[in-house]
Amino acid sequence: MNSALSGIRVIDFSRVLAGPFCTMNLADMGAEVIKIERPKYGDDSRNFGPFKNKESSYYGYVNRGKKSITLDLKNPKAKEIIKDLVKQADVVVENFKPGVMEKLGFGYEVLREVNPGLVYCSISGFGQYSPYSSRPAYDIVAQAMGGMMSITGFPENPPTRVGSSLGDISAGLYAAFGIVTALLHKQKTGEGQYVDVAMMDSVFTFLESNIVRHTVGGVLPERVGSRHPISAPFDSFKAKDGLVIIAIASDHHFSKLCDIMKQPELMQDEKFCTDPNRVLNEKELKTIIEMWLGQFTVDEAIKVMMEQGIPCSPILNIEQVCKDPHIEAREMLVEVEHPAAGAIKIPGNPVKLSVTPPMVKEPAPILGEHNEAILKQFLAYDDGQIAQFKEDNVI
Amino acid sequence: MNSALSGIRVIDFSRVLAGPFCTMNLADMGAEVIKIERPKYGDDSRNFGPFKNKESSYYGYVNRGKKSITLDLKNPKAKEIIKDLVKQADVVVENFKPGVMEKLGFGYEVLREVNPGLVYCSISGFGQYSPYSSRPAYDIVAQAMGGMMSITGFPENPPTRVGSSLGDISAGLYAAFGIVTALLHKQKTGEGQYVDVAMMDSVFTFLESNIVRHTVGGVLPERVGSRHPISAPFDSFKAKDGLVIIAIASDHHFSKLCDIMKQPELMQDEKFCTDPNRVLNEKELKTIIEMWLGQFTVDEAIKVMMEQGIPCSPILNIEQVCKDPHIEAREMLVEVEHPAAGAIKIPGNPVKLSVTPPMVKEPAPILGEHNEAILKQFLAYDDGQIAQFKEDNVI
Repeated sequence: MNSALSGIRVIDFSRVLAGPFCTMNLADMGAEVIKIERPKYGDDSRNFGPFKNKESSYYGYVNRGKKSITLDLKNPKAKEIIKDLVKQADVVVENFKPGVMEKLGFGYEVLREVNPGLVYCSISGFGQYSPYSSRPAYDIVAQAMGGMMSITGFPENPPTRVGSSLGDISAGLYAAFGIVTALLHKQKTGEGQYVDVAMMDSVFTFLESNIVRHTVGGVLPERVGSRHPISAPFDSFKAKDGLVIIAIASDHHFSKLCDIMKQPELMQDEKFCTDPNRVLNEKELKTIIEMWLGQFTVDEAIKVMMEQGIPCSPILNIEQVCKDPHIEAREMLVEVEHPAAGAIKIPGNPVKLSVTPPMVKEPAPILGEHNEAILKQFLAYDDGQIAQFKEDNVI
Repeated sequence: MNSALSGIRVIDFSRVLAGPFCTMNLADMGAEVIKIERPKYGDDSRNFGPFKNKESSYYGYVNRGKKSITLDLKNPKAKEIIKDLVKQADVVVENFKPGVMEKLGFGYEVLREVNPGLVYCSISGFGQYSPYSSRPAYDIVAQAMGGMMSITGFPENPPTRVGSSLGDISAGLYAAFGIVTALLHKQKTGEGQYVDVAMMDSVFTFLESNIVRHTVGGVLPERVGSRHPISAPFDSFKAKDGLVIIAIASDHHFSKLCDIMKQPELMQDEKFCTDPNRVLNEKELKTIIEMWLGQFTVDEAIKVMMEQGIPCSPILNIEQVCKDPHIEAREMLVEVEHPAAGAIKIPGNPVKLSVTPPMVKEPAPILGEHNEAILKQFLAYDDGQIAQFKEDNVI
């Protein structure tokens, strides 16, 4: 099948999450991603659970469809091999702390000499130029410094981390967008460039309108639980056996809800007749809605409201979402057959392209699985040389 | 200055957030985005606060650098104009509920006839094929159905919405990645295609390893507050005047922390000597750390820990992050001069490209600001025709 990025070769120095998530998206779109890993140990994430037959499925999911070559980045011979690989590549991705690639001799200025058309992408906590560039940054630091924790959670609770690694994932996705954008420029002009993405910046943009609410509106957005800051009823509500999301932002839908609840008089009540008034009297409204909801299970309540076109939904836990028919219909959970781990189910790619669809079929590589193939195919090394490299701990 | 997407023309039917966030990223990279808005009213988000001189800065931030033409999508003459515009475009973006564009006569099958090389992107809550395609989807629904709410928040609290519109922003960003990827394919082959992105799918992928923790590990990931599921101390901690993030995932850093706390014996204590043991005794460890932290302000505590290279940070609120020197150094808040609103500060673009940097300089358009210019430039209409269109409420 066609792939949009077929013919694009990526040399991937990245580890754990932000970088690998970026190159995973490139691999899904058909790029050949050659992942460079430490001899014997590999990417740290090979030690992150859950494991199946001793293989990390954390590593397995985020590195599907890539090739693995082990190379000791400090070994002079390995350095030569890397430069030879970069010569034949289109993209380099790395997510070391700023300065590390320079120290290793693989900084942008060096590698662009080797390959002037190179698109070189660095992902880091705070970017290549920032007062904080040298600081270590885990995801929670990016979420805390990017402002997201301050607006997530209930007002009576402390600032709350988003339950997954938003800092890594958002930066990895921006980096993938930046790289493909740079490749488009390269395809037109032959010119490569440097792509610098910071986790803190990425999280910051995910604040969306909360930024102008402050810079223009003079408001300090804070934690509002699951409520909507300017619409009601727009929240989670208790039904007989769990919570239901109701998302009403118009009088039309509210009026429908009043009808279903058999309380059409609410729509005439000054306290509830407009969206701003409903927000002012939100607590009372929530009590009224939950009194009504209490007679229904979540499923029943949703059925009744859906029939009237009211935006609503259950709150799925991870088990429920993984089993959901939508996820199946959209191929958002894909089974891949790993040579050591066997069949594992990993997330699919959400960018459904009709002509060049994303491919999530190949498993992640075993450590160094492609050492020989890569050295032979790209660098024409012979068996003797490869044996010597192994002996010398180059690979 | 160079722009990677200069020469790329986007006809933008999208409204409010997910679609406009996608085309904002394309505009930042130099694409010419022509936004089609309802005559007299425009995009709903023109009515979302905060306002400055009656202009919405919500609309203003997410539509910077675009052009606005008003066209009544149901008017036959407007339909002709739109087809003429699409003929001269590379990309169409829309985020109506599935089926609406078809009803209006602008479905993919129709517009690809008009322009065979077209990249046509639809963003919706559940995608074009799904058991839920026809359901209305606000952000909170995508967060609830995508599994994210179930793992965000404290265990003693209900599932919690991420404090910003993760469903919209993640889908908009994936769509931008998908469009640029499709443009790369188009540039090579001349071939256009359909890009279908769902908010629920996008949120689902942001769960990252929580998915394999369930599908492979058999675990049901739940809410853990701001803690790390498998490392400690990795959480927020109380100092004298607020909370501090400490993110320690190695014995090396923990040992440094023990030294700073002048309690090196903790590192010898069986309860705390390994990461798994620290997780088991996390509550006790948190008490010990907070007893020590209580003597310092947040700033003091961070200074002391930073000096020893311990990953830590304050938790910035929206006001603090907007003032932060990092945000300034990275041009992540940019002042644009709006003809009606005056100067407003809006978020910059986090994808720092060295040769074709993102441009966040032009303000968002006033409603219909480019009606005449677009009709004249692209369709060679004369003043008389344009006056007639106005009279007939076409534009």
